[in-house]
Amino acid sequence: MESIKIGIIGGTGYTGAELLRLLARHPRAELRVLTSRQEAGKRADALFPALRGHCDAVFEVPDPERLAACDAVFFATPHGTAMQMAPALIERGVKVLDLSADFRLKDAAEFQRWYKLEHSAPAALAEAVYGLPELHREAIRRARLVACPGCYPTAVQLGLAPLLEAGLVDTRGLVADCKSGTSGGGREAKIGSLYCEVTESFKAYGVPGHRHLPEITQGLSGCAGETVGITFVPHLVPMSRGIHATLYARLRKPLADLRGLYAQRYAGEAFVDVLPVGDHPETRSVRGANVCRISPHLGPDGETVVVLSVIDNLVKGASGQAVQCFNLMFGLPETLGLDAPALAP
Amino acid sequence: MESIKIGIIGGTGYTGAELLRLLARHPRAELRVLTSRQEAGKRADALFPALRGHCDAVFEVPDPERLAACDAVFFATPHGTAMQMAPALIERGVKVLDLSADFRLKDAAEFQRWYKLEHSAPAALAEAVYGLPELHREAIRRARLVACPGCYPTAVQLGLAPLLEAGLVDTRGLVADCKSGTSGGGREAKIGSLYCEVTESFKAYGVPGHRHLPEITQGLSGCAGETVGITFVPHLVPMSRGIHATLYARLRKPLADLRGLYAQRYAGEAFVDVLPVGDHPETRSVRGANVCRISPHLGPDGETVVVLSVIDNLVKGASGQAVQCFNLMFGLPETLGLDAPALAP
Amino acid sequence: MESIKIGIIGGTGYTGAELLRLLARHPRAELRVLTSRQEAGKRADALFPALRGHCDAVFEVPDPERLAACDAVFFATPHGTAMQMAPALIERGVKVLDLSADFRLKDAAEFQRWYKLEHSAPAALAEAVYGLPELHREAIRRARLVACPGCYPTAVQLGLAPLLEAGLVDTRGLVADCKSGTSGGGREAKIGSLYCEVTESFKAYGVPGHRHLPEITQGLSGCAGETVGITFVPHLVPMSRGIHATLYARLRKPLADLRGLYAQRYAGEAFVDVLPVGDHPETRSVRGANVCRISPHLGPDGETVVVLSVIDNLVKGASGQAVQCFNLMFGLPETLGLDAPALAP
Amino acid sequence: MESIKIGIIGGTGYTGAELLRLLARHPRAELRVLTSRQEAGKRADALFPALRGHCDAVFEVPDPERLAACDAVFFATPHGTAMQMAPALIERGVKVLDLSADFRLKDAAEFQRWYKLEHSAPAALAEAVYGLPELHREAIRRARLVACPGCYPTAVQLGLAPLLEAGLVDTRGLVADCKSGTSGGGREAKIGSLYCEVTESFKAYGVPGHRHLPEITQGLSGCAGETVGITFVPHLVPMSRGIHATLYARLRKPLADLRGLYAQRYAGEAFVDVLPVGDHPETRSVRGANVCRISPHLGPDGETVVVLSVIDNLVKGASGQAVQCFNLMFGLPETLGLDAPALAP
Repeated sequence: MESIKIGIIGGTGYTGAELLRLLARHPRAELRVLTSRQEAGKRADALFPALRGHCDAVFEVPDPERLAACDAVFFATPHGTAMQMAPALIERGVKVLDLSADFRLKDAAEFQRWYKLEHSAPAALAEAVYGLPELHREAIRRARLVACPGCYPTAVQLGLAPLLEAGLVDTRGLVADCKSGTSGGGREAKIGSLYCEVTESFKAYGVPGHRHLPEITQGLSGCAGETVGITFVPHLVPMSRGIHATLYARLRKPLADLRGLYAQRYAGEAFVDVLPVGDHPETRSVRGANVCRISPHLGPDGETVVVLSVIDNLVKGASGQAVQCFNLMFGLPETLGLDAPALAP
Repeated sequence: MESIKIGIIGGTGYTGAELLRLLARHPRAELRVLTSRQEAGKRADALFPALRGHCDAVFEVPDPERLAACDAVFFATPHGTAMQMAPALIERGVKVLDLSADFRLKDAAEFQRWYKLEHSAPAALAEAVYGLPELHREAIRRARLVACPGCYPTAVQLGLAPLLEAGLVDTRGLVADCKSGTSGGGREAKIGSLYCEVTESFKAYGVPGHRHLPEITQGLSGCAGETVGITFVPHLVPMSRGIHATLYARLRKPLADLRGLYAQRYAGEAFVDVLPVGDHPETRSVRGANVCRISPHLGPDGETVVVLSVIDNLVKGASGQAVQCFNLMFGLPETLGLDAPALAP
Repeated sequence: MESIKIGIIGGTGYTGAELLRLLARHPRAELRVLTSRQEAGKRADALFPALRGHCDAVFEVPDPERLAACDAVFFATPHGTAMQMAPALIERGVKVLDLSADFRLKDAAEFQRWYKLEHSAPAALAEAVYGLPELHREAIRRARLVACPGCYPTAVQLGLAPLLEAGLVDTRGLVADCKSGTSGGGREAKIGSLYCEVTESFKAYGVPGHRHLPEITQGLSGCAGETVGITFVPHLVPMSRGIHATLYARLRKPLADLRGLYAQRYAGEAFVDVLPVGDHPETRSVRGANVCRISPHLGPDGETVVVLSVIDNLVKGASGQAVQCFNLMFGLPETLGLDAPALAP
Repeated sequence: MESIKIGIIGGTGYTGAELLRLLARHPRAELRVLTSRQEAGKRADALFPALRGHCDAVFEVPDPERLAACDAVFFATPHGTAMQMAPALIERGVKVLDLSADFRLKDAAEFQRWYKLEHSAPAALAEAVYGLPELHREAIRRARLVACPGCYPTAVQLGLAPLLEAGLVDTRGLVADCKSGTSGGGREAKIGSLYCEVTESFKAYGVPGHRHLPEITQGLSGCAGETVGITFVPHLVPMSRGIHATLYARLRKPLADLRGLYAQRYAGEAFVDVLPVGDHPETRSVRGANVCRISPHLGPDGETVVVLSVIDNLVKGASGQAVQCFNLMFGLPETLGLDAPALAP
């Protein structure tokens, strides 16, 4: 079968490296272009030796013509780049998957407020589809431009959607206490991400406001059909990969079968795993895998629901989900290239 | 000055080892008896080489006479032991500090419900003082028997007391999302505590009910003057030491100076550090130190207070707090032997 | 194509779990029997949630008939089990791959000396083939019983074989300074393997003598054609997976192209990767992958060769190598089911 | 008693922070000046929250007059700074302790070869005393300028000195296989030191040549009375603190009491701990403590000595050793302020 020609823009970060790892095993994807201004001329496996033997790509300076010759282009760049380059690619028939924040917030003013940057592609923004397949599968199939969700928003939305869609909980006073591995902070040289600063410690950050809050609010409000109010506190965990969202919601009325609600909502979903009653998911159970494991609990007070939702932030929270969307956009089986079990221990 | 003769019962766990470390530096404490049935005859520093050069103690089988000759005895045992042995020691004039759960819950029925064990010393239980000096200092000074608080309850109570004492927040719907290092699980050979099971992973546990819940409820209700309702979810962090409590409460009415409330409440407290506005405490900033660092935040919705409270579970959450109580009980300066800064990185 | 029926005896440890992970992706292997006396009746994915969705196996008590109906049986047991059960299986036409130490040492007396156990199957021992494909490929193809090498011996032999086979270094005074992740110690509840005992620390162990020493000596002596003398010191690294062997040998005479020697020796080997000159392999570059990455260096003194050799102890050092042998024994492509890149970070 | 006025130049790295921690507890030291051009105006405890309550110092731009008013000045700077500033301070009667490499190598040409920098203070270099008290105590007492040893050289020299001083081993073919925690790489924002690059991995580095090699050779040659030949391979361990040196030497003739040799050599040394026969030191047993624990073993071949030597690279390998030298230079008890036990777990 013919392969699908792939370009990756900005492949030197952790989500870029993860895309390379996943696409190296994808039976239909063929990497044609891999860009990085800074590393141009260098082999990808010189930067990421884990890929030796699996990836012959060499970083190059972005060339519009070479990118336009691709069938699909992934942006694994900081925010601000995709909105500059994506519109021209779409025009020329390239399908675009953006792993950055550029097209996640439907309201350009909200984007500007949180990212301190005017949105330069409002038309593309209007067209962009939010790439959470479990909530927007059909739209993704038809999309030319997919905005892949942030890592925290993926874990939170998958965790709360069943309750909000069914109108079972208060839409005010939600709490999302989230914990992330350090790769969520990116592969940038900064003091706060040093081994010695992170290991054997735990802390919250961004309590006064984090960029994923408006994305979470937008997504959950879509589920609820009304604007939700949520307090979101992210924390940094001394580990590389993994997000654990602990979600608190107040039941509007008693619910007989909480786990059943989740099992039914996610029946048929290949990448959402509702655990047996009473289980607690570990992040390592999804390490390297494109899956969200969820366990809803009724708290001891009988009215607070506690939902535990875990993903690998680099896979279901970023690159794996992007490949999942890619499969949908190209009419491929949704699980293609995404069927490896997690690596534990 | 004359030294105070100390006995430690059950010194082979992490809280026992931490007591040995702290008391080795305490200018007035003199360790006379260190018991362990299993390790009897072995030097403590053979078990804990970090103590080489600082501790000559040898484990011995518990001997009532030798214990009764001490001025103070610490129990660093699993629950069930102190309630058997403490009453006789108290009778003979020994002051007792129990680091286990035996005397924490004032209601013996509640103890039995959570610990599956009938309480064998109801009179001692009635007499026991809860050893959280910032809430019960004067009673501790006069106590013969102190029940040292659990690690989670310490972090949660210090974090929420100012709000509850002042009646500023709803007493229902409180949330304590707590994260603990692995030493909280003890130095027992069990699969779940193995390095390979814990490292690079994060999980919740005990969502259906954890033994620290009734202790937290009891303590907070005392602060509030009414029974509080709280959802408590503990999590396991891939680190040795440290507890981070992220606490959520709903303001009853707007509050002008949240940090000021905390600064005032803890003014003069040597072991509670209220951080500057906007800061986020890291657990490593208290590693090895007998201090609780707290940072209260007002959430983006303007009505949810988010309090961040960190301690070292083995120090302020256990052995350090026990020494703090010991100092109070013997009329010593409260900070004696507890003035070392934290070790970071 | 018809599938090959597989049995695994003792699947509750880390090598057992890794076999399950690897075989779940193997296109020709079909797991028929998975035994554990202790966990009989329990689903494998209840013990190892990372396998949820990838493995439906249920532990059962070993049943000779059900095992004899398999085409191949893997032993992932402590030493002493395979030598009891393997001979009968071989008799009945089952091919056996033993991941324990039972058939590694060709000299039964040497086995008894190091493992304190008389060897009960000397005939099988005589027949057993040492399962290091890069040294014994043809014998493995024809074998009925393969003794899969230990993790340290794999890293050391692959690292030193080119020098010894070519007679380039002194065969006395070799040094193998080896470092292993904690999963090498197994999934047993023991104090020394607890998270709090391992994290943020580093130590040597077994300096007076380690069971892998005779295996290393046997293997290297085979390469050299004479008995070698080697000092082997294992160390414990605060990580789950990975072995790093740092190997020291004295050149008998100057060598022009050290890297060329290695590149030529391992040309065509799918699972040995000789790094570019000057590189230093990281264990994470092989995490989860069946590959040994090697980098030979000439030391500053011009006469000491320093070889760096890394593997994942659970994959190329155990279960992956077993699957590689399995492929050879059944005439399958050697890389079948073993082509996933490493997972980093 | 009068306090000794201290200045610290460059207090923003890990050795600087460790000096602050240690001096905060030193009964005679009074910190007067703390410099950092980059952080001038900022409180030290804002950078290092673990120091809150123990250190009121504020970073300032270096001012020669204020530094000259100190009794002692510590340089915790990258190489190249101390050789510019130290001579003027010495002239003005200030005692200088340099934690950088500027005055470690007695041969200025050798310095230039390894550090790519011409030495600008050859007279001071000639005067400088190498600050390893166990080898040069008397000279340190009289010194105006002390060059504090590197971390690896400390562990290696203390480990091999007894054998070399006694002429018991070959002086050629020595091997120092060393492993260091990540804080040895400094508190600089660089990709290679990121948490995600370091955790759960292990690697060698600098095999072709490391700057500590000439320092080690110089020190060991001094012990042996002849030029030694040693192969030194450093490795990076996924932990913050700790160095483990595994040292290999060939006995010239059989030795009856290896441990006795060490015990006798280090009798009376407060900061060298020779372990019981057969023990293996763990780096965590020295975490935060100014001690080197050593265990010499005779290898299975009966002629190779394997010495295990561990220190905390930031304490006995840097700041603690500097304070030890400081005590000697000012006629104080050598252990003053350095008597805290290690922190484990």
